[in-house]
Amino acid sequence: MTNTSTHTLAQQLKAVREASYRMATLSDAKKTAVLNRFADILESESTFLLAENQKDLDAAAAANITGPLAQRLKLDTSKIQQLAQGLRDVAKFDDPVGKTLLKTLLDDGLTLEKVTVPLGVVGIIFESRPDVLPQILSLILKTGNAVVFKGGRETKFSNGAMMTLVKDKLNAEFPELPDAWACLLESREEALEMLDYPEYLDLVIPRGSNQLVQSVMARSKAPVLGHADGICHQYVHASSNLDKALEVIIDSKIQYPAACNALETVLIDDAIAPAFLPQLQLAAIDNDIILIGCEQTRAILPDAQPATEDDWRSEYGDLRLSVKIVSGLDEAIQHINTYGSHHTDGILAEDSQAQALFLAGVDAANVYVNASTRFADGFRYGFGAEVGISTSKTHARGPVGIDGLLSTKYRLLGSHHVVKDYVGQSAKPFKHTPLS
Amino acid sequence: MTNTSTHTLAQQLKAVREASYRMATLSDAKKTAVLNRFADILESESTFLLAENQKDLDAAAAANITGPLAQRLKLDTSKIQQLAQGLRDVAKFDDPVGKTLLKTLLDDGLTLEKVTVPLGVVGIIFESRPDVLPQILSLILKTGNAVVFKGGRETKFSNGAMMTLVKDKLNAEFPELPDAWACLLESREEALEMLDYPEYLDLVIPRGSNQLVQSVMARSKAPVLGHADGICHQYVHASSNLDKALEVIIDSKIQYPAACNALETVLIDDAIAPAFLPQLQLAAIDNDIILIGCEQTRAILPDAQPATEDDWRSEYGDLRLSVKIVSGLDEAIQHINTYGSHHTDGILAEDSQAQALFLAGVDAANVYVNASTRFADGFRYGFGAEVGISTSKTHARGPVGIDGLLSTKYRLLGSHHVVKDYVGQSAKPFKHTPLS
Repeated sequence: MTNTSTHTLAQQLKAVREASYRMATLSDAKKTAVLNRFADILESESTFLLAENQKDLDAAAAANITGPLAQRLKLDTSKIQQLAQGLRDVAKFDDPVGKTLLKTLLDDGLTLEKVTVPLGVVGIIFESRPDVLPQILSLILKTGNAVVFKGGRETKFSNGAMMTLVKDKLNAEFPELPDAWACLLESREEALEMLDYPEYLDLVIPRGSNQLVQSVMARSKAPVLGHADGICHQYVHASSNLDKALEVIIDSKIQYPAACNALETVLIDDAIAPAFLPQLQLAAIDNDIILIGCEQTRAILPDAQPATEDDWRSEYGDLRLSVKIVSGLDEAIQHINTYGSHHTDGILAEDSQAQALFLAGVDAANVYVNASTRFADGFRYGFGAEVGISTSKTHARGPVGIDGLLSTKYRLLGSHHVVKDYVGQSAKPFKHTPLS
Repeated sequence: MTNTSTHTLAQQLKAVREASYRMATLSDAKKTAVLNRFADILESESTFLLAENQKDLDAAAAANITGPLAQRLKLDTSKIQQLAQGLRDVAKFDDPVGKTLLKTLLDDGLTLEKVTVPLGVVGIIFESRPDVLPQILSLILKTGNAVVFKGGRETKFSNGAMMTLVKDKLNAEFPELPDAWACLLESREEALEMLDYPEYLDLVIPRGSNQLVQSVMARSKAPVLGHADGICHQYVHASSNLDKALEVIIDSKIQYPAACNALETVLIDDAIAPAFLPQLQLAAIDNDIILIGCEQTRAILPDAQPATEDDWRSEYGDLRLSVKIVSGLDEAIQHINTYGSHHTDGILAEDSQAQALFLAGVDAANVYVNASTRFADGFRYGFGAEVGISTSKTHARGPVGIDGLLSTKYRLLGSHHVVKDYVGQSAKPFKHTPLS
């Protein structure tokens, strides 16, 4: 990395910042037209997209990447149609920008408003899957933001093709779009270096491996939205319907074991452990799940591997499942709050008081009653698309859609009001009257 | 700093984290009772508070601290009554916790809710003014959070006295309050070390000098709410009523020059500069304001000091005021977005189109039309109290009251729903029906 390249990246980010100011003033009609046109372009240029995607697939094959990972890299006509449909769906959303969240009359002729505005510049660092870029681009456009992408090497050609369509087709057809509103960085070094410029970057969203997210969080001077771990729990309360609980646990574990919202640890009330654990073992055998148990669990299931302290802090991402017997609700909540990652945790219980105490007591972005942890997802929640899942408690928490790409602004509309009239002995009182 | 002290601070913060879980489940009736009782205690223990405050005043006198700074340190019976009234006002607010922000039927028997929850643990690092601690404590209590304070040396005894009342009176009378819900750190080293424990700290709010805020922002691994600079602008548009504009400018500058929302730079359209600048100079002389002007300004006002590039980036915090002539709205907006601190910027204009373009184009937490920048304040906005003013675009922006101390949680209430039913060839569709 030379000084020249540093200079160039800073200049590029400055151009994105300036572009973001123009994006912020786009009308909703214009943003809708751009989104619909982008959908058309994806469909009419599908031959080009598929040809470029094939280069990524060839590179994957040459690197001996096969199976589900290679499958995720593949675009086809049906996927492109889905992407186009997704863009048209987002185009139909109400304009999220300029919504009045608060309106207060401070005094006669002095009105305060709080309105939604775009965040500004969002940096997205992501791995694999060529459909991520257009999906996120649709949310960026609808919210009037500018974006800097860095995709993985494995989708280099597919991402490049998408950006070619943005630059050569979309930007060319809509002069209102500033050139720098959407950029794609080429190198990992540039992506990391971007994190040193908080003046040009309002939010960074890393999507990918635990390692990627942690390296971004450690370096970034700009706020980071995301989650490093997904250590999710299901707690089987004594009041649980055991047969149904088992189905939910198996779905939480095996439906997609590598996902962040997949189950890692089951907690079981001691009163029902002797009845439940043998059923869990049978289902585990049927589904190739490897059980790792606490001492008490192993007293009932001697075949389970012994759990260490590390197991309670592990996101396996595979078919291992740790199992711990607890004395009741309090211990379950304490275990989850201590060892969990505050992502998604559920209780399996028929007792409504236990449900309520669990929902209130567990400190997680998503807390569930009698449902699979795998539901924690922006599409399933009905957000149309998601930019990521946040386990931070500031800004946005849980699956994040359009809301996470917005900020607010206070507008004060006065008639030459001055503060000196509202202080001291003869201070005028404020009215603070809420308006509509 | 020894390993022993590190160990102790981590243990102390862990206790605050655990206390935060109990605070999160306090009923609104309980929080209201605690707040009202705290107000009574402040009044009935005013002799004790004033005696301890006198120790701070004596220390300030011994250190030759006089004038407005010494004045800010002083408590008196009337200030204590105001603090008590503030606590009773906050007690009356609606419970901010547990509000439903979103409710969606995902499918029959599967309901998603987004509800407000406390942030958890908030760290507040502040300087001077003994009334900050009880004011913030009231918001912390109402929002069900736990708090770690670090006050300035100059209010050591006053802050200590407040905390003695919390621990010996309030906590003793309300067994529901866990001991560690409110803590006061003794040393600056501990306050900085706290920033290394994001697992125990959900948000840090530094209040005080630019230097304090920047050192906290640079070190903290937890999110920081606040602002380093307050470089605020007023732009005098060609359509402005010049006499009234001048009054607003003078108020913005002199009403409290050291405040973050005080004016630092005036931008003036070239068309009206010859008419306006001589008026500004007369008012400046009357109010001891020192004008620092661009070349064009000095062509009209030769007595103004010459401005350098640094002046446009300076928060003077005193009676200096920089002045720049601009070619119109676009240059004004660009100057503010480039050199400002995104805190509070105003336009003085009668032309409604210019007003609208300024409000949309300026990227600041507070954007004003014909009003003094000094209105940017939580009390003046009607928030009851403020924990700080944020220039970040994530989480909270502008003056921050109760809203900035809340997070959200998604609750999913199912009937043993599993995700496998909603994927693949025979996938059930989601309903995504908004509920009430």
